[in-house]
Amino acid sequence: MDMKENAKSFVASQKDIFKERRSFFQKGIALSVAAVATGNLFAEEGDPNILKQMPWQKNIGNSGLENKYGQPSIFERKVLRKASKECASGSWATVSALCPLQDLYGIITPNGLFFTRSHSGIAQIDPKRYRLMIHGLVEKPIVLTLEELKRYPRVSRIHFIECSKNGSLKQGKSSLQEIKGMMSCAEWNGVYLKDIIKDLGLKPTAKWMLAEGSDNSAMARTIPVDKVLDDVMIVYGQNGEALRAEQGYPVRLLVPGWEGGFSIKWLKRLEFATEPFFSKEDIEHSVLKPNAKAIQSFYPMEVNSVITSPCPEHPWDTIKDGEWVEIEGVAWSGQGTVKGVDISFDGGKNWTKATLKGLVLPKAWTRFSLMYRFKKGEKLLLCSRAYDDAGFIQPTFKQEMAFMKVDFFEHNNTIFTWEVTKEGKVKNVQVIS
Amino acid sequence: MDMKENAKSFVASQKDIFKERRSFFQKGIALSVAAVATGNLFAEEGDPNILKQMPWQKNIGNSGLENKYGQPSIFERKVLRKASKECASGSWATVSALCPLQDLYGIITPNGLFFTRSHSGIAQIDPKRYRLMIHGLVEKPIVLTLEELKRYPRVSRIHFIECSKNGSLKQGKSSLQEIKGMMSCAEWNGVYLKDIIKDLGLKPTAKWMLAEGSDNSAMARTIPVDKVLDDVMIVYGQNGEALRAEQGYPVRLLVPGWEGGFSIKWLKRLEFATEPFFSKEDIEHSVLKPNAKAIQSFYPMEVNSVITSPCPEHPWDTIKDGEWVEIEGVAWSGQGTVKGVDISFDGGKNWTKATLKGLVLPKAWTRFSLMYRFKKGEKLLLCSRAYDDAGFIQPTFKQEMAFMKVDFFEHNNTIFTWEVTKEGKVKNVQVIS
Repeated sequence: MDMKENAKSFVASQKDIFKERRSFFQKGIALSVAAVATGNLFAEEGDPNILKQMPWQKNIGNSGLENKYGQPSIFERKVLRKASKECASGSWATVSALCPLQDLYGIITPNGLFFTRSHSGIAQIDPKRYRLMIHGLVEKPIVLTLEELKRYPRVSRIHFIECSKNGSLKQGKSSLQEIKGMMSCAEWNGVYLKDIIKDLGLKPTAKWMLAEGSDNSAMARTIPVDKVLDDVMIVYGQNGEALRAEQGYPVRLLVPGWEGGFSIKWLKRLEFATEPFFSKEDIEHSVLKPNAKAIQSFYPMEVNSVITSPCPEHPWDTIKDGEWVEIEGVAWSGQGTVKGVDISFDGGKNWTKATLKGLVLPKAWTRFSLMYRFKKGEKLLLCSRAYDDAGFIQPTFKQEMAFMKVDFFEHNNTIFTWEVTKEGKVKNVQVIS
Repeated sequence: MDMKENAKSFVASQKDIFKERRSFFQKGIALSVAAVATGNLFAEEGDPNILKQMPWQKNIGNSGLENKYGQPSIFERKVLRKASKECASGSWATVSALCPLQDLYGIITPNGLFFTRSHSGIAQIDPKRYRLMIHGLVEKPIVLTLEELKRYPRVSRIHFIECSKNGSLKQGKSSLQEIKGMMSCAEWNGVYLKDIIKDLGLKPTAKWMLAEGSDNSAMARTIPVDKVLDDVMIVYGQNGEALRAEQGYPVRLLVPGWEGGFSIKWLKRLEFATEPFFSKEDIEHSVLKPNAKAIQSFYPMEVNSVITSPCPEHPWDTIKDGEWVEIEGVAWSGQGTVKGVDISFDGGKNWTKATLKGLVLPKAWTRFSLMYRFKKGEKLLLCSRAYDDAGFIQPTFKQEMAFMKVDFFEHNNTIFTWEVTKEGKVKNVQVIS
């Protein structure tokens, strides 16, 4: 809304209100201005120079009843998901819209900005026709409607989902959103799968479960029964409302802490068996090592962290010498709860303990913070190193390569470094071609 | 998307794909179908009758890159905020859009459905021109830009906001949304006001703070300094993203647990003084008692609860005799943390302990649950009674009247009852004219 126009219309309305009122009663035309404000306390005592800068609403705004489903502020239109660089390849194997981590606060990602990843586009499933089949090595196979699914005791948990390829540094990515945006964190609402299975009677020979989606690619993954009986959920809600189409509406699997691909969207069936299923997706996510042996499956996304402020999108170029700034970031572990985060200003030679702040929950984003007195003109190599209650700590890239022997561009939880230049710009200095 | 059409186009695409491919290479026209699914595992082994019911996506969907800010599923278009019954009076004093509690899960309300309340409509404030003035009894008065505000250490907290008039039973409300929808709960992102005040030097004579909005009505409330130095926040984020316009963009006050009106939106200035300010809004929220004495201010929203499932919008009319159903609800206290909730089936004569589930946080929604074996044909008077760690428990309406001597239609935290009819319908039986 233009403030000048408001001011003009305000003056106009004051002059004209009685005239308008008269004409309203004469002609039966509704007034566009329903009332006039009683004055502005600030105007009585503020510095006139401040007042000029200080905008306030000089007329009555919309009632808020027009948008029955609210939308972001018109001033925030640039805060959006973004196609991943890999999308440029034109292959469905790479379609992902990245989460704008640089503009997020706290640990909840709003549903409109939650990252997306799909293998054959967004399925549109009519909830009235939705069915979930659970079969294989169970005493009583079942086909559930959405209504029946919602009859099980409801569970809500805050968990991140991260794509296994998140943090891959191929293709010269420069921004935080490009480099780490294949993850988000939300409150998930649904049921524990173990609560349903209890009723069905799992046969003792059942060791593996296939979860299959009803998207065009029939995306499927195999999950060991131990995990299923631990914390796997069937979810129909995200941050309190129904799942969005791009998140698997009406129902997805949620496999907390594990590669995002396990959390099958548009969930169609669950089948229990003695042996793993080796779906196409399972095989694509195995790792062939130089010794010709393969790591069959990587399950959890390991302990990880990234500094979100500063970042290339929000540099320190306007910070003055000697001012305090907050170094803030997000840490997470698919194997437990973040126990602590260290920060280094010199690329990992020396480390300072950061503070964990807000809620610290298992398999959820955890915010960390360190106040720093900014020194103008000093080059920094800023990095963070998280550790979790499962006993893991982020490795360096060198350590990771020594262990893996191969850079397979997945599960990259190596310590990540931003360069803060002498001008306060922030750059990714870890591009690996 | 129509499934029949999908099926047709799938068959067509199989027949035509080679022809199309040929014609593509001949004419240089892009294919509309980029790939064909490799088959559907479910089809190989399912019961054909189930298959008919079971929808899945037979063509490739949208990529998810078109909606850079995502929207709810097209099948959820009825889940909306709703004008409060009081809006029918046509007065700005009553404008509120109610939260659809009946369709929410967990403790996070998505921003698009968070209830709204405004006194002169939604202000539109340009964030670049935004200023916050803090003055009065402080050593160093200050005017902050939004950027400067964001430089303070960031804090994120999950808190409910409830309008003091929520649960007023005037005007024959019948649905859960109408009766209890003037509240919601979110993760709020911003700074502790005490962290800013620390820098400014509060004078020892400062006992009260006026918070004033930049909306047309210059909505203002007075808050004692003790509360300010406890947990009052200045927030610019909600559920991870920037505040929405209707929630006070770019900045609002958040006064956890207290009447929603204290959490001034479009926050313009904070003034510290020795005496309370008695703003118009402060006075409107005082209570004149029959003995001609007034309760000057009601601050916290007292411990409260409501059963959200079943409710009039989601009755039990399709539940069969002997089936287990979950009684679920939300409890909250502006004075601390919910300690427990009891449920009664007979209007408060006998009580059964419910289970608290998920996160149990101070001044936040807390979910409670009780599994119930449904008896068809039995009339129930279903009610819940919460108690908190501050030592309070919900009163009956009779107890409340005996204490207050007057029904002032605010702070109604009395035990609320649904009647479940013999047919499984759910009705509000507590209309107070």
